[in-house]
Amino acid sequence: MKSVGVVVEYNPFHNGHQYHIKQSKKKANADVVIAVMSGHFLQRGEPALVDKWNRTKMALSCGVDIVIELPYVFSTGKAEHFAKGAIQLLSAIKCDSFAFGSEDGNIEPFYNTYSLLQDYRTEYNELIKYYITKGNSYPKSLFEAYEQLKQKRPQLYIDLSQPNNILGYHYLEAVNVINSSIKPITIQRIKAGFHDDIQLDSTIASATGIRKALFEHDDELNEILRYVPKTTFTQLQHWQQTHQQFVHWEAFWPLLSFTITRYLPKDLTQFADVSEGIEYALIKYAKISDSFTTFMNHIKSKRYTWTRLQRMLTHIFTGITKEQLQQHESPTYLRLLGMTSKGQQYLGEHKKDFELPLISRVAQTKDDLLQIDIRTTEIYSQAIQLFSTKKIDGDYKTPPIRM
Amino acid sequence: MKSVGVVVEYNPFHNGHQYHIKQSKKKANADVVIAVMSGHFLQRGEPALVDKWNRTKMALSCGVDIVIELPYVFSTGKAEHFAKGAIQLLSAIKCDSFAFGSEDGNIEPFYNTYSLLQDYRTEYNELIKYYITKGNSYPKSLFEAYEQLKQKRPQLYIDLSQPNNILGYHYLEAVNVINSSIKPITIQRIKAGFHDDIQLDSTIASATGIRKALFEHDDELNEILRYVPKTTFTQLQHWQQTHQQFVHWEAFWPLLSFTITRYLPKDLTQFADVSEGIEYALIKYAKISDSFTTFMNHIKSKRYTWTRLQRMLTHIFTGITKEQLQQHESPTYLRLLGMTSKGQQYLGEHKKDFELPLISRVAQTKDDLLQIDIRTTEIYSQAIQLFSTKKIDGDYKTPPIRM
Repeated sequence: MKSVGVVVEYNPFHNGHQYHIKQSKKKANADVVIAVMSGHFLQRGEPALVDKWNRTKMALSCGVDIVIELPYVFSTGKAEHFAKGAIQLLSAIKCDSFAFGSEDGNIEPFYNTYSLLQDYRTEYNELIKYYITKGNSYPKSLFEAYEQLKQKRPQLYIDLSQPNNILGYHYLEAVNVINSSIKPITIQRIKAGFHDDIQLDSTIASATGIRKALFEHDDELNEILRYVPKTTFTQLQHWQQTHQQFVHWEAFWPLLSFTITRYLPKDLTQFADVSEGIEYALIKYAKISDSFTTFMNHIKSKRYTWTRLQRMLTHIFTGITKEQLQQHESPTYLRLLGMTSKGQQYLGEHKKDFELPLISRVAQTKDDLLQIDIRTTEIYSQAIQLFSTKKIDGDYKTPPIRM
Repeated sequence: MKSVGVVVEYNPFHNGHQYHIKQSKKKANADVVIAVMSGHFLQRGEPALVDKWNRTKMALSCGVDIVIELPYVFSTGKAEHFAKGAIQLLSAIKCDSFAFGSEDGNIEPFYNTYSLLQDYRTEYNELIKYYITKGNSYPKSLFEAYEQLKQKRPQLYIDLSQPNNILGYHYLEAVNVINSSIKPITIQRIKAGFHDDIQLDSTIASATGIRKALFEHDDELNEILRYVPKTTFTQLQHWQQTHQQFVHWEAFWPLLSFTITRYLPKDLTQFADVSEGIEYALIKYAKISDSFTTFMNHIKSKRYTWTRLQRMLTHIFTGITKEQLQQHESPTYLRLLGMTSKGQQYLGEHKKDFELPLISRVAQTKDDLLQIDIRTTEIYSQAIQLFSTKKIDGDYKTPPIRM
């Protein structure tokens, strides 16, 4: 059987995702779709709307055949690290190809940009430094340096200001770095705009737009009905009935602010990226802010972007230290979250070729990377008890979802 | 002016306290009453029902002229440490005498018991060891050893199974150890029973009984109306209007359980008395218990009594480590929480003789002991935001209450 891989968060799974899966399968001419999905903490430093089991069900009921968990260390990492971990897993599970979304659906510009930045690495870095010293933000400096570099070799390049393109770039980079035979494919995204509000004239909205709509309307599900498959709707409904509300930083604020307040500044620097005095601001404003948004508006700056801060806060919240994160360059296992019968068939046929052990049940384990996933699941589960009387299924003894 | 000292928690201030103040003043023939009062965390390892400012107002409006804070390190310590810190403060502020409550109001038996245990210290300890090896609990062994020792010298002794007598014993011990000239006085308590439920035929109830009544009736203040002075009632009412509910471990459970869960077992052992494996039980049951009471019933045992566990949890909650606690043998300042005009007059007249600096306003300070008080006030304030939109007054810039 031929397989195509996708790298996802499904927070939540929506019509755009379903479209991406259909197109990927067609373009890759694949029989099964394998999704590498983040667990409970996501790449922009946010807790997931609902738990990973619930999101696995959304995926399996909409065309995904196998869901593998992207370990916390990679799911909360910078684009480069995130992409590398994901591609390593898709290679290890022997995907023939993987498909990612891009603005114009053409793979050529990705290769062009990648080789351009490879060939002119040193010059590129010097240009970035130059623009930073001229007082530009890091993103802005990247942009300027890139614009200038493009002049050297006139051809089609990707727009690196698009988050999806940046990820795509790092996917190609990862394939190259780990020297994998997996074939990259890109699918043009149906325009919704990465951070757009939902548009009433369409059935496509970004996950960000969907979450925004939910939170702005007190978790009123009907607000997003048209943008998600029926099965996503049912899963979200089920979560709501079981746990009262959806998860986001605002809901965790009493725990997050208390956790920050209990630290001394020097002890906060054990967490990734917490340094240069931001630790004092974190504590000072955690004490006086009565909501997560107020807090973020106090501390965000050109230097400390919203996403960068949220990643710091994620690690402070879960208690996973810089040292723990740095110990893990590559995934050490394939954690199976769920499968369809076709997915099961694929696993049966290819298991012997997998480059990493397939874990369907988490027993007591010595694997540090897996320990971190288990721990962060526990933290997430403990935290939702702020508003939910029910916990989520733990990693121990929860078998893979079958659909 | 002559002064008499009292050592209190006022959690909350009730009719029994008012009676004790009147009698102490009379028996000591004093002009002013100086109370050494615990801050936000108390001797049995519990957070205070309402904050220290509110409780200071209760005291000043019912006969206390000066309220000095007993630092966290002593207010959450074992009886011996608690008593020593309190007596050191009352001596430092030049109290002529201090009065404590006892079951029969006679000071003689306290002296008798104290010298008996002094004269037979070694024998006493050996007897205790003996009874423990015979499988008795520590309190039970103390009791048996004491009973046996009493035979050596037949005279009146105190009943050491009474918490108030134990405290009284340690007060005398402290006076002796620090070699203070302060005169001990004891006042017979109006029977209410230390842990009794409130009795409807009386206007006297223990603070424990009063808190119990409050929590069992959803903070319904009318339940305790008859047992507290009008001014206490008003203060509690004010707190309720400002902060919605009264403070107890049950209300803090989401924060406490989350805090425990975030620790690795080995990291919990940095807190006082957490050792010998109890750290594993704390984490295990914090994860599965949906209330503080459920949690405590899981972990309490003959070895780990309710109070011993609550003290551990207090330190875990505030983040104050064993090492920090052990650094402080004696108070280093007199922290003024409030005063009446008469109290102010006393301070003016005797200030020059005080053996410790009188602190009315907490500025940035290097004093570690004071830092701990400030920090635990912040933790308490942060924690009540679980149910309150308002914080309490911080230690910085909050001037002493004047009444």
